[in-house]
Amino acid sequence: MSRPVRVVVLGSGSWGTTVASLAAHNTRTTLWCRRSEVAEEINSDHRNRQYLGERPLPDALDATDDIEFAASQADVLVVGVPSSAVRATLTEVAPTLRAWVPVLSLVKGLEAGSRMRPTQVVGECLPGHPVGLLAGPNIASEIIDGMAAAAVIATQDEHVATALQPLFAAPRFRVYRNTDVLGCELGGVLKNIVAIAAGMAEGLAVGDNTRAMVLARGLAEMMQLGEAMGADPRTFMGLTGMGDLIATCMSPASRNRRIGEALARGLTVAEAAKELGQVAEGVKTAPIVMQLADEFGIDMPIAAEVEAVVAGRHTPEQAYAGLGTVPPGTDQHESA
Amino acid sequence: MSRPVRVVVLGSGSWGTTVASLAAHNTRTTLWCRRSEVAEEINSDHRNRQYLGERPLPDALDATDDIEFAASQADVLVVGVPSSAVRATLTEVAPTLRAWVPVLSLVKGLEAGSRMRPTQVVGECLPGHPVGLLAGPNIASEIIDGMAAAAVIATQDEHVATALQPLFAAPRFRVYRNTDVLGCELGGVLKNIVAIAAGMAEGLAVGDNTRAMVLARGLAEMMQLGEAMGADPRTFMGLTGMGDLIATCMSPASRNRRIGEALARGLTVAEAAKELGQVAEGVKTAPIVMQLADEFGIDMPIAAEVEAVVAGRHTPEQAYAGLGTVPPGTDQHESA
Repeated sequence: MSRPVRVVVLGSGSWGTTVASLAAHNTRTTLWCRRSEVAEEINSDHRNRQYLGERPLPDALDATDDIEFAASQADVLVVGVPSSAVRATLTEVAPTLRAWVPVLSLVKGLEAGSRMRPTQVVGECLPGHPVGLLAGPNIASEIIDGMAAAAVIATQDEHVATALQPLFAAPRFRVYRNTDVLGCELGGVLKNIVAIAAGMAEGLAVGDNTRAMVLARGLAEMMQLGEAMGADPRTFMGLTGMGDLIATCMSPASRNRRIGEALARGLTVAEAAKELGQVAEGVKTAPIVMQLADEFGIDMPIAAEVEAVVAGRHTPEQAYAGLGTVPPGTDQHESA
Repeated sequence: MSRPVRVVVLGSGSWGTTVASLAAHNTRTTLWCRRSEVAEEINSDHRNRQYLGERPLPDALDATDDIEFAASQADVLVVGVPSSAVRATLTEVAPTLRAWVPVLSLVKGLEAGSRMRPTQVVGECLPGHPVGLLAGPNIASEIIDGMAAAAVIATQDEHVATALQPLFAAPRFRVYRNTDVLGCELGGVLKNIVAIAAGMAEGLAVGDNTRAMVLARGLAEMMQLGEAMGADPRTFMGLTGMGDLIATCMSPASRNRRIGEALARGLTVAEAAKELGQVAEGVKTAPIVMQLADEFGIDMPIAAEVEAVVAGRHTPEQAYAGLGTVPPGTDQHESA
């Protein structure tokens, strides 16, 4: 093989920084930060304190705020910006990115308006580049702390995933492959909505029986929409589906769960986002997913209630009263 | 219709008492208690303090320690004793139980030696009686407290389930039907083993990523064994599978989870059982399930590690080191 590849990660949130840190142990890696203070903090202190506190990042990790320079250096491009910023960011990158460079998305939200998945936006902004995603049950702070986790690289061409696997793997971070890009991507997108419902359940103290029902029924909704859209339903049983869903719903560190808890405390979405210092993807995705559910004729009562709460039409209490009347469809027959 | 039916529940543990309380709101109900003090406490104080603290039980709920008399009165028999006591208890009941009385199992463990499921033991001890089970994500104390929950009555003949549904339903306790008795019963049995693994994860503080992997992979193991044994794999996605699994793994009230936590603190199974005041079904079931896994050629690494810890061959730390090397099979391809 020729010279070592350089991985360039766009976006210095907790997950982008974590993926860049994983790659920096394996190969040359650059993290692009929108704000120059963050790039300086990473280069001088090896910290990203806003998102990861005092956790030390690898010395070998370079940071920069120059996106055109970063893109020009990339042999592998990783996209870790919020879903609402993907198109604008990639438009900045397109002129300097070399041909053939594979692009991996970390993004877990749909684009408003177009309702496109992140890999579709990549395909439109960077035509001709192999596109995939890295997803799974990945609480960023745990991975930086060296706790065991696993993820999936999903690409249509399995050779690309095979080439990318060793760049992100670590002894306690196993990386698997899957060719069902649609199923893997929808898992990460849709679970954020269920996580908001789980957070509301937590905040309302509805009990473990109900929380378990929300997760089980939420996964069934995800699977039904996914299958209607063309995904393999079995993908939703794997790391990027049930695995990511459970981690997100169980972890107090999950933004989407915390938004749900704040809503249950009576805050509005705007107040909750202000308290968290960031908007959770599920808030933006819920109305888009309800449009898809209508279009594909899928009944998604949990997503519908989350959307109604996020839009301010229902209180979390009303949402849970509504869910109490929803039949659990995977059980073969309903009561009369 | 003729005179109202009498439901007789055998076994005054937390779940048997809860199911009897649900039925007592709908029809005449008798709870058989092995110990006369418990029957007296229920009849005079309307409490079962050992299992349900100061939660009030319905005034209409009768309790008795006379099993032959109780059985002779039954129009519907519910079996809520531990799996190890099912055969002996039903042998006591057989001579006085009237013909045609349907029998519903609440039991979530396999019989040692025979490796039979509870409904199979019922079929052997009480031939000719319609047999089914009531299962789901049912934390007993939450249901007594009136929190929302749902369960499934599984019978081969759906008419039987339809007749039994209204006896156990309540405004906040919905009862569904399923004809996959095998799948519903295996869900309740197998989830106890995964709950022990989840409890060990909790005790070892392995992180939410790993806990999520254990649940996702645990459900996949349950489904694979169930399918090999003849169950409908979709049943494991429902209330009696994923629903019950998540409730049991999330709830600090779960006996099987608490056994796992105690093992992670370094206690032996005997010490942990003494601390809890009872043996958890998963401890007894793990070695039996591993025999079934061998027989049906199913790879069950999580159940295998739980069995190894329960048998004293592995520490919980060794079990989790072992699980760290297990590939997540539902993802289409493993890393090289």
